[in-house]
Amino acid sequence: MAIILGDNQYGKAESRIVRIVRDSPRHEIRDLNVTTALRGPFEPAYLVGDQSNVLPTDTQKNTAYAFTKSKGVESIEQYGLDLARHFVHEIDPVEGARIEIEEFAWERAVVDGTEHDHTWLRKGQEVRTAAVTVDSSGEYVIGGLKDLVLLKSTGSEFAGFLKDEYTTLPETHDRVMATALDAKWRFSSLDVDWNAVYPTIKALMVTEFATLQSLALQQTLWHMGTAVMEEFPFIAEVRLKAPNKHHFDYDIGRFGVENHGEVFFASDRAYGLIEATLIRDDAPPAGEAWRASAGLA
Amino acid sequence: MAIILGDNQYGKAESRIVRIVRDSPRHEIRDLNVTTALRGPFEPAYLVGDQSNVLPTDTQKNTAYAFTKSKGVESIEQYGLDLARHFVHEIDPVEGARIEIEEFAWERAVVDGTEHDHTWLRKGQEVRTAAVTVDSSGEYVIGGLKDLVLLKSTGSEFAGFLKDEYTTLPETHDRVMATALDAKWRFSSLDVDWNAVYPTIKALMVTEFATLQSLALQQTLWHMGTAVMEEFPFIAEVRLKAPNKHHFDYDIGRFGVENHGEVFFASDRAYGLIEATLIRDDAPPAGEAWRASAGLA
Amino acid sequence: MAIILGDNQYGKAESRIVRIVRDSPRHEIRDLNVTTALRGPFEPAYLVGDQSNVLPTDTQKNTAYAFTKSKGVESIEQYGLDLARHFVHEIDPVEGARIEIEEFAWERAVVDGTEHDHTWLRKGQEVRTAAVTVDSSGEYVIGGLKDLVLLKSTGSEFAGFLKDEYTTLPETHDRVMATALDAKWRFSSLDVDWNAVYPTIKALMVTEFATLQSLALQQTLWHMGTAVMEEFPFIAEVRLKAPNKHHFDYDIGRFGVENHGEVFFASDRAYGLIEATLIRDDAPPAGEAWRASAGLA
Amino acid sequence: MAIILGDNQYGKAESRIVRIVRDSPRHEIRDLNVTTALRGPFEPAYLVGDQSNVLPTDTQKNTAYAFTKSKGVESIEQYGLDLARHFVHEIDPVEGARIEIEEFAWERAVVDGTEHDHTWLRKGQEVRTAAVTVDSSGEYVIGGLKDLVLLKSTGSEFAGFLKDEYTTLPETHDRVMATALDAKWRFSSLDVDWNAVYPTIKALMVTEFATLQSLALQQTLWHMGTAVMEEFPFIAEVRLKAPNKHHFDYDIGRFGVENHGEVFFASDRAYGLIEATLIRDDAPPAGEAWRASAGLA
Repeated sequence: MAIILGDNQYGKAESRIVRIVRDSPRHEIRDLNVTTALRGPFEPAYLVGDQSNVLPTDTQKNTAYAFTKSKGVESIEQYGLDLARHFVHEIDPVEGARIEIEEFAWERAVVDGTEHDHTWLRKGQEVRTAAVTVDSSGEYVIGGLKDLVLLKSTGSEFAGFLKDEYTTLPETHDRVMATALDAKWRFSSLDVDWNAVYPTIKALMVTEFATLQSLALQQTLWHMGTAVMEEFPFIAEVRLKAPNKHHFDYDIGRFGVENHGEVFFASDRAYGLIEATLIRDDAPPAGEAWRASAGLA
Repeated sequence: MAIILGDNQYGKAESRIVRIVRDSPRHEIRDLNVTTALRGPFEPAYLVGDQSNVLPTDTQKNTAYAFTKSKGVESIEQYGLDLARHFVHEIDPVEGARIEIEEFAWERAVVDGTEHDHTWLRKGQEVRTAAVTVDSSGEYVIGGLKDLVLLKSTGSEFAGFLKDEYTTLPETHDRVMATALDAKWRFSSLDVDWNAVYPTIKALMVTEFATLQSLALQQTLWHMGTAVMEEFPFIAEVRLKAPNKHHFDYDIGRFGVENHGEVFFASDRAYGLIEATLIRDDAPPAGEAWRASAGLA
Repeated sequence: MAIILGDNQYGKAESRIVRIVRDSPRHEIRDLNVTTALRGPFEPAYLVGDQSNVLPTDTQKNTAYAFTKSKGVESIEQYGLDLARHFVHEIDPVEGARIEIEEFAWERAVVDGTEHDHTWLRKGQEVRTAAVTVDSSGEYVIGGLKDLVLLKSTGSEFAGFLKDEYTTLPETHDRVMATALDAKWRFSSLDVDWNAVYPTIKALMVTEFATLQSLALQQTLWHMGTAVMEEFPFIAEVRLKAPNKHHFDYDIGRFGVENHGEVFFASDRAYGLIEATLIRDDAPPAGEAWRASAGLA
Repeated sequence: MAIILGDNQYGKAESRIVRIVRDSPRHEIRDLNVTTALRGPFEPAYLVGDQSNVLPTDTQKNTAYAFTKSKGVESIEQYGLDLARHFVHEIDPVEGARIEIEEFAWERAVVDGTEHDHTWLRKGQEVRTAAVTVDSSGEYVIGGLKDLVLLKSTGSEFAGFLKDEYTTLPETHDRVMATALDAKWRFSSLDVDWNAVYPTIKALMVTEFATLQSLALQQTLWHMGTAVMEEFPFIAEVRLKAPNKHHFDYDIGRFGVENHGEVFFASDRAYGLIEATLIRDDAPPAGEAWRASAGLA
């Protein structure tokens, strides 16, 4: 009846790296938050404090910074693959690497009607994400976005739902629907034009959110996911997590002011939370693609 | 040697109001965070718990919601004036009102190349602000923005500074300069096209940030402020607060990789903090314009 | 080559519930953040917007509030079981329920040396957590804590680690070690005195953190986990996630001031992140215990 | 009609400093967040980018770190005075210095019933604050605390308030009252045992919050402030800012469950906000004591 070490990993979280490409007067910027984690025979570090297999997290950070120049950041997916392969193939005891990257978008400042060469405003919308895993079983890439805040002021219903003794919610055929979308998609190929795919996925999701007469946020998510998977055959799976950011009609009729879906209280908490996975029935196995941590979300 | 009640106010902070204008199929959205505070003869509430002069903060909130429909939100400055005047002129014991508003911008979803009628993405950039005070001494309007995150990858220097025994910073003639600008401007007139002024002010500030070869963030702030004041004679004063969001060169030369202003560590804390007021020498007195609270920032 | 709906769930996140027990003049307080999620045959809601199986998230929230009185909150584990069983056994289409609860601790105000009957200060330390899953495969309870911030100013080393070309970290035999511990433990029994176990687990972990001469944070985590599992045979598994909150010696020797482990810069980011699972070799299968979401962390 | 530079200052914000005193095996810890700002003849930096009077913010940070060892941190008030005097008296162009400090409390880990020598848990309650200003007009010290979260489950009323057409709030004679107190107090003497005063002030405020049958949060604040000022004649002024953290009765009567002040929804926003200043009628002038910034809160 022994206690054993199960799943484990270690790494450096949230290295904030800004990479400026200045090979010409028109600079480019990539603004990253990089997390690396290594997997392998690290039991001695836990059981007896033996670090001989442990590449310091500080070293992982140094590598992440250096690679933004020596390998470049053509896309966060490619950069993640470069980093993960390095750790697995070049560092002897390392058996697996997980690289998670957030990218913050910037837009060029406009001066006298022209985009400026070396000045940007933080764009502030959704964060683009990538999660890359490399180990002896293969190479896995997940793309994604998070905190894409969407709102529609009509074209959303919620009715015909199950009722029990605790149900007081009225049915509605016209409400505000708003969310802060968190989406991830698993690629079944590595031969992808990563930077071309991303804006199309975002546009498809926004279009479905806007145009579907929604009977439930669940239905909207399903349409967003299928639109993406129908467009890109190399996307095997889409996972979606969407808070239902409630906007409650504020009762100003008490004061003689009509409110026909015009004045809302935007609530912070509690919020609905809808989660769904869409997958092709012939998708290759996910393998290690989705394993982010050693057990704790 | 008595203890007396000095400056005081009370109100409802952070009412989150979303106003949809749906008079035509092309809806409009205003997304607000509204804080109201009242001033007047409220000593009995403090000294003996007598509420007879106290209009509940809940009532203030109800009023803020109702007014977004009954008065509308043509601009946050006008809406703030409407609210402040109501409390001072319609509620007998109230002598002064301070209304502070944050507005979050949304941009229309684009579907098949066309802006959608009733779907938006949260824009995510700077927050537009207004602070309105009305009392017996007059009416005061301050416009503003906050969290406008700007970065330039060259065109910024810092050299020739004072040195003492604790000074280790090297001089530089080419660095990243980045900030999250907080700006407020005091209007000396109420006859202003509030919504026309705002984007011009933002554009002027961005242009100065981009185009000035900066010898210090202080100098950049001065240029941003003067550009605005030279454009709009009815802006009597500009107050600026700008963190110097440090981007440190990451030493990857240790690994044989050159870094000529290309790879940076974006630091969270500590950060520089530069604050400045620009004022016309013939500006009318600020009166109660800047008094936000009863004493605590 | 069809697209199918995979793993999915929906519910109400972060209902903030404060329960006062006032059956005697000495009141008690339970301060909870409750998240419920249901699993079952909800495909029609996604595919065609049919809500007939969907118990609204609003109803789930109502139930969570009502149960704090009708069932009480003897412990968050028991309360979670009550809620989960209700949804699975009383609501016909529901097949599984996941209840996650955070509890914020309060301590009684002390007045004239005596604990006050109905006034508290928010304690502010770690958050106690529980995650309960009930479905046809069984009932699962996970206890936990998060954000327990610990620091030791000596008794921590890091040396003998693997070095490559990107390694610049010096070895040390005396450093500050600090973390914000996130721990979860899986119970293999439901016949547990939940409230008695919790403080003992916390005390055991703190004791190991304090007393072990640590060769690595990994080793400290191992000792913390084994101490808990040796004490409580009904804990089958412990999962730990610990940021290494770096405290860097600040080089004040440049100014003629000695610093022998006395003055530190407490860094925000990047930070090390160590994750480990400890499990008994004869542990019962985890089943659905650890599945928190439908796919996204 | 010129534009002139008005009020301005610059400095380094939020240097995170941990100071360990290890002169004996029983270590001590001070955990600080230090912000320094300098005032003086810095116009040339703004107008023409001339830095010759500008002591870099990096130097200010170095000094703040060095002083925690060379001068020590007997109390944050004394440490702030040391820093402010240094900048004003030792750095030639500097005319004024403002030092703001937050201190995070830790409590010793208890191991086998004994307080541990070098391990702590972050206490997590209120943050102790100090704000020190030194210039040619004098030396000013403000003590304070923030985020002291208090709740009482009875002994609070709100009735007899002013009503208008927007008033819907029912009167109550038994409600939950909760706040996150932000308090600052101005010392009229520098000959104070800073560390002895602080816990007494906190205890007095907690006692008043607990024991007063409160007719309004305003009344509670008045009692908290006067209790402190009556105890300490060298406190000339107290400024209080207190959100009314609303706890709304949750209507579970709809489900046949009684709720007599037992089940509450703890709301995030909007919240009431009460602000008050208490001052002695013979208080010495505040001078520069309260001026925190150059104009923006």
